[in-house]
Amino acid sequence: MKRTQHKRSPCPVACTLDLIGDKWTLLIVRDMLLGKKYFKDFSRSPEKIATNILTDRLEKLVEAELVQRYVVMEEIHRDAYRLTDKGKSLHKIVELMLTWGLEHIPGTEARLRPAEPKKK
Amino acid sequence: MKRTQHKRSPCPVACTLDLIGDKWTLLIVRDMLLGKKYFKDFSRSPEKIATNILTDRLEKLVEAELVQRYVVMEEIHRDAYRLTDKGKSLHKIVELMLTWGLEHIPGTEARLRPAEPKKK
Repeated sequence: MKRTQHKRSPCPVACTLDLIGDKWTLLIVRDMLLGKKYFKDFSRSPEKIATNILTDRLEKLVEAELVQRYVVMEEIHRDAYRLTDKGKSLHKIVELMLTWGLEHIPGTEARLRPAEPKKK
Repeated sequence: MKRTQHKRSPCPVACTLDLIGDKWTLLIVRDMLLGKKYFKDFSRSPEKIATNILTDRLEKLVEAELVQRYVVMEEIHRDAYRLTDKGKSLHKIVELMLTWGLEHIPGTEARLRPAEPKKK
């Protein structure tokens, strides 16, 4: 991590929630697991994340080294985003929420299941 | 669920985050998995949750049927809280965040590991 973050406690659950405990962060991770990489693609997801929230969450994800910003060579000046290995390891949490939601929340459906992330 | 909740999308990840996607809810679930049942016990956890936030999250947990409010017979007029079976099933998500935090966030430590919840 680039800067020391305030910890509410040494509890690993609390510290994990400090990084991903909100309604949006794991949806961006979900989208990256599904192969999305551009800002506009995240903003077009069905949950309709507001652009200021998306900007904020992407910055926090990059700062926490869960996501890497890079430039796609064919499209100069266009930033893209991808999960780092640390970010890819959130796959299991996303997958478990997917399974939990399908089992416990009526009306949910998984149109696309994130693929197991490949190692670099 | 007592009332129909607005769904951002049918995605089970998004719907799960609508229930537990914040910095506090899963810490209350963690505390219940560790055996805490009274309001004041949750409020004394090291993360120092504000009482208004705790009140709000407990109400939402009860409304979502993840937690049941009950009265301890030996202590009349004192509300207690316990996980329903649906709430207990969040155990895996808490456990995975614990494991993820220990592995990826320096300085975290698990003093107490929530026990596997027993079936009623």
